[in-house]
Amino acid sequence: MNRLERLRKENPLVVCITNDVVKNFMANGMLAIGASPIMSGEISESEDLMQAASALLINIGTADRAKAHLMDEMMESANENGIPIIFDPVGFGASRFRVDITEDLLARHKVALIKGNAGEMLALSGSESRMKGVDSAEAGNTTEIAEAVHRRYGVPALVTGEKDALATEHGVTTMVNGHGLQGKITGSGCLLGGITAAFIGTADTFEREAVVDAVSYYNLCAEAAAGKCAIPAPGTFIAGLIDELYLNDDTLLEDSLVGGI
Amino acid sequence: MNRLERLRKENPLVVCITNDVVKNFMANGMLAIGASPIMSGEISESEDLMQAASALLINIGTADRAKAHLMDEMMESANENGIPIIFDPVGFGASRFRVDITEDLLARHKVALIKGNAGEMLALSGSESRMKGVDSAEAGNTTEIAEAVHRRYGVPALVTGEKDALATEHGVTTMVNGHGLQGKITGSGCLLGGITAAFIGTADTFEREAVVDAVSYYNLCAEAAAGKCAIPAPGTFIAGLIDELYLNDDTLLEDSLVGGI
Amino acid sequence: MNRLERLRKENPLVVCITNDVVKNFMANGMLAIGASPIMSGEISESEDLMQAASALLINIGTADRAKAHLMDEMMESANENGIPIIFDPVGFGASRFRVDITEDLLARHKVALIKGNAGEMLALSGSESRMKGVDSAEAGNTTEIAEAVHRRYGVPALVTGEKDALATEHGVTTMVNGHGLQGKITGSGCLLGGITAAFIGTADTFEREAVVDAVSYYNLCAEAAAGKCAIPAPGTFIAGLIDELYLNDDTLLEDSLVGGI
Repeated sequence: MNRLERLRKENPLVVCITNDVVKNFMANGMLAIGASPIMSGEISESEDLMQAASALLINIGTADRAKAHLMDEMMESANENGIPIIFDPVGFGASRFRVDITEDLLARHKVALIKGNAGEMLALSGSESRMKGVDSAEAGNTTEIAEAVHRRYGVPALVTGEKDALATEHGVTTMVNGHGLQGKITGSGCLLGGITAAFIGTADTFEREAVVDAVSYYNLCAEAAAGKCAIPAPGTFIAGLIDELYLNDDTLLEDSLVGGI
Repeated sequence: MNRLERLRKENPLVVCITNDVVKNFMANGMLAIGASPIMSGEISESEDLMQAASALLINIGTADRAKAHLMDEMMESANENGIPIIFDPVGFGASRFRVDITEDLLARHKVALIKGNAGEMLALSGSESRMKGVDSAEAGNTTEIAEAVHRRYGVPALVTGEKDALATEHGVTTMVNGHGLQGKITGSGCLLGGITAAFIGTADTFEREAVVDAVSYYNLCAEAAAGKCAIPAPGTFIAGLIDELYLNDDTLLEDSLVGGI
Repeated sequence: MNRLERLRKENPLVVCITNDVVKNFMANGMLAIGASPIMSGEISESEDLMQAASALLINIGTADRAKAHLMDEMMESANENGIPIIFDPVGFGASRFRVDITEDLLARHKVALIKGNAGEMLALSGSESRMKGVDSAEAGNTTEIAEAVHRRYGVPALVTGEKDALATEHGVTTMVNGHGLQGKITGSGCLLGGITAAFIGTADTFEREAVVDAVSYYNLCAEAAAGKCAIPAPGTFIAGLIDELYLNDDTLLEDSLVGGI
């Protein structure tokens, strides 16, 4: 199935309640693949936006109490309108506050996918985190962490790292594309959340393959961007990554390295 | 008249109350043409800022109720100090909230220019919008839409699209420069709002030609940037557009394609 | 001493309460040198974050009253936990509000370093400012301004300009590296604040040399980035600056031009 082709035809509206650091980068990356991102800061917009949306992306980085309330309302409207929610617990474990709002939001609303880096998802799984900052990743065993989060919350869980792992009721899928520079730029994981939301929003029902394709497409574009840098470095890479997201199509996915458990 | 040369001598202070997605891009683009952008989130700054400002740019994207209140105060101070206001109703029509604050702000304050894309301006004109997201544009007839908004609000109206149209009491001017990649990056229209504000802020009184030059300069820079991309793509284009805004001068305007109705 | 090498080993967590315009650029620049930036908007996170942080960066651009309260709490926790605070009074003098919150925060908390451009620091020193916007710099005598701020507040003061000047109890150090394009992009001074915070956070106690190295490294990277632009222009320069911050190491500092009074 040509998911990207369909995405570029449908231009799914993805409502993003996301952190202040990455809004521009996320919007550009999502436009590049053909999605229509919209960001909102107003609680009373939730019903209007959710009636038109194909997906809702929730990213808790830089959230405060008011924004947690906004997320709560958006997620409520999304659930009522049958809109899939992608939840990214950025910096989970860095503060009691982030733990509290995450657990509260996940308890109150049904999400389609939880995604995060190994440190965040390890903490979310109930195990102890040794996380520092929001960008650090632990090597860890992403497969086990994904399974643990999936078990705990009963929803698909995507853990990013050198080996990305997606755990669903059908088992674990691993993906090994990507480039080290992704860890050297801010918002790399956040944008993946937005792209995954767009892919999920394009499918008629939740499909594991939509997530796998989103992750693989993103990571293959990162490889291509890094490969074109004369000297691989993050400033040039950022622009190159946006370029590749725009220039490639479904055929790129033929190179994806995906495995079972 | 060498507007850009004058702008670069005067470095007009343009106060921007704008959306969270595009602040960095807008600031860099405005610095590139020689303006002095300042952004504020604090209501008590309105009087101080409006006493020093050459123009006020209001962009309602990602606004919430508190920010609408900030906009109200800034516009009040701007009117009192005779500072021209450029109003950009981003995402108008996407929610009742955006409709309400736009209509309220436009009813309470006098603006020098309303600008928006075809979908937003069509909705603002009172006609029905088929808008999706904030970046989508309808082909539509930008000339008619500009005239309709001008008629409804009694102020100059600029509608962007493949053909840009500016409607004032003296009729409609159309402009046809630009490049398709502008529609593939976030904040392209927002930055045009900031640049237009800087051009208007440099003129002694409102001049239609200031808006026409702002739009033409911006679009010609976009053409130049796209022309220098080895393979036209949005990541490289963003940096190139900022470069061109910085590198060119008034002579670029000799290539502008401007027409009457 | 190889400060950058140590920084890249320790990846100091730098909590940034900074303005909305530059968050993405600051985060990418700080990641490029090896720091772990985290940004927060929530007051209840202050204690958790300060227990893990190596430094706190406070930047008052785009602040409102709520954010000033957040800064107050973060600085309180930082002082309690012995975390050095770097304070950047962006736009000081542009409004009574920015003056008030700066004076209040500096009166209530002990900071390790105040840094700002010549216009801001001149105003902060008690002298009259002729500042316009937040990006304009006055030539002025940065050495005298740094001494005046240091005298007034009793803490190290860094004034940026063509000649950067750092005044401490041991006298004034001047630094003359850098490139004019730094003044043409938004957040250039803000990112320097973040980088300085990371260098200070890497040292065991406050060392004047840590600030000097931070400033010199940043400015030398700017020179390198500008030197590699085919035609020096801000869009390309932004990416190149991030690249250089990532690619260089302590040996670059051998080229730094540093002097006494």
